[in-house]
Amino acid sequence: MSNVSNFTYDEISIGQTASFNKQVGEQDVSLFSALSGDVNPVHLDESYAAGTIFGERIAHGMLTGAIISAALAMELPGPGTVYLGQTLRFTRPVKIGDRITVHLEVTGKRDDKGFVTLDCKVLNQNDKLVASGEAQVLAPSEKITIERTSSPRFGLID
Amino acid sequence: MSNVSNFTYDEISIGQTASFNKQVGEQDVSLFSALSGDVNPVHLDESYAAGTIFGERIAHGMLTGAIISAALAMELPGPGTVYLGQTLRFTRPVKIGDRITVHLEVTGKRDDKGFVTLDCKVLNQNDKLVASGEAQVLAPSEKITIERTSSPRFGLID
Repeated sequence: MSNVSNFTYDEISIGQTASFNKQVGEQDVSLFSALSGDVNPVHLDESYAAGTIFGERIAHGMLTGAIISAALAMELPGPGTVYLGQTLRFTRPVKIGDRITVHLEVTGKRDDKGFVTLDCKVLNQNDKLVASGEAQVLAPSEKITIERTSSPRFGLID
Repeated sequence: MSNVSNFTYDEISIGQTASFNKQVGEQDVSLFSALSGDVNPVHLDESYAAGTIFGERIAHGMLTGAIISAALAMELPGPGTVYLGQTLRFTRPVKIGDRITVHLEVTGKRDDKGFVTLDCKVLNQNDKLVASGEAQVLAPSEKITIERTSSPRFGLID
């Protein structure tokens, strides 16, 4: 059980970096289908996916977006961050079992508003770019620390 | 059990619209925390959230992004769409229990590549804009129909 602290606006500097990684498992793709409503067979049906240009099941593009959002919320700036906007380019498919790493770098600060812009690059385990973009956030004004515990756990219901 | 058909590139015209709606429930927010890794208490802890500027628990911003991605994948262009990119502005918080509707409108086609751009606006049940942006997709070249059934079902594990 570890704690997560944030970086307040004043503690953030241009060029500051952070990273966050996650293995994209079978269950993540099923969870994403359930919560978004996107039940396309390219994500859920192995035999269907084998006949597509991808040749196998792939994760939803926006699942990578979700992991970028977690990087911002958990690492930099961290807890208390308010998400204002994001651009995304999906450049390569993420396959089931891939481990992807989000690399964040602070590229801008706007003192009058507390806004921070971050360059976002997401690489797979072979260091190939799967997505990139820019995030804009309102950085926290107060230092806070939360417990990294309480991720809800889910199981498939048949 | 209904079927979902797509619109191929040739069937898509500038100005064409579609919509997709979803009520954002308690479980969607927990699922999003589990799959993304963002376990910030503003999403998960009612008493913590009461002390924030939001006054109550809010959904993750990128959960709205996930629902936009489902609108593209299920409605317009529909199954077989390849997601190329997305811009997003988060303008208002989405609260637990809100019903949000994604409105898509085709704003551009690029014949040499098969790319389609769509304006995306997301409104809550009070017709207030919660997010907006632009999607870029590779539209399907073949007509396909899938069953709208198989959304995986999940339950909380204690």
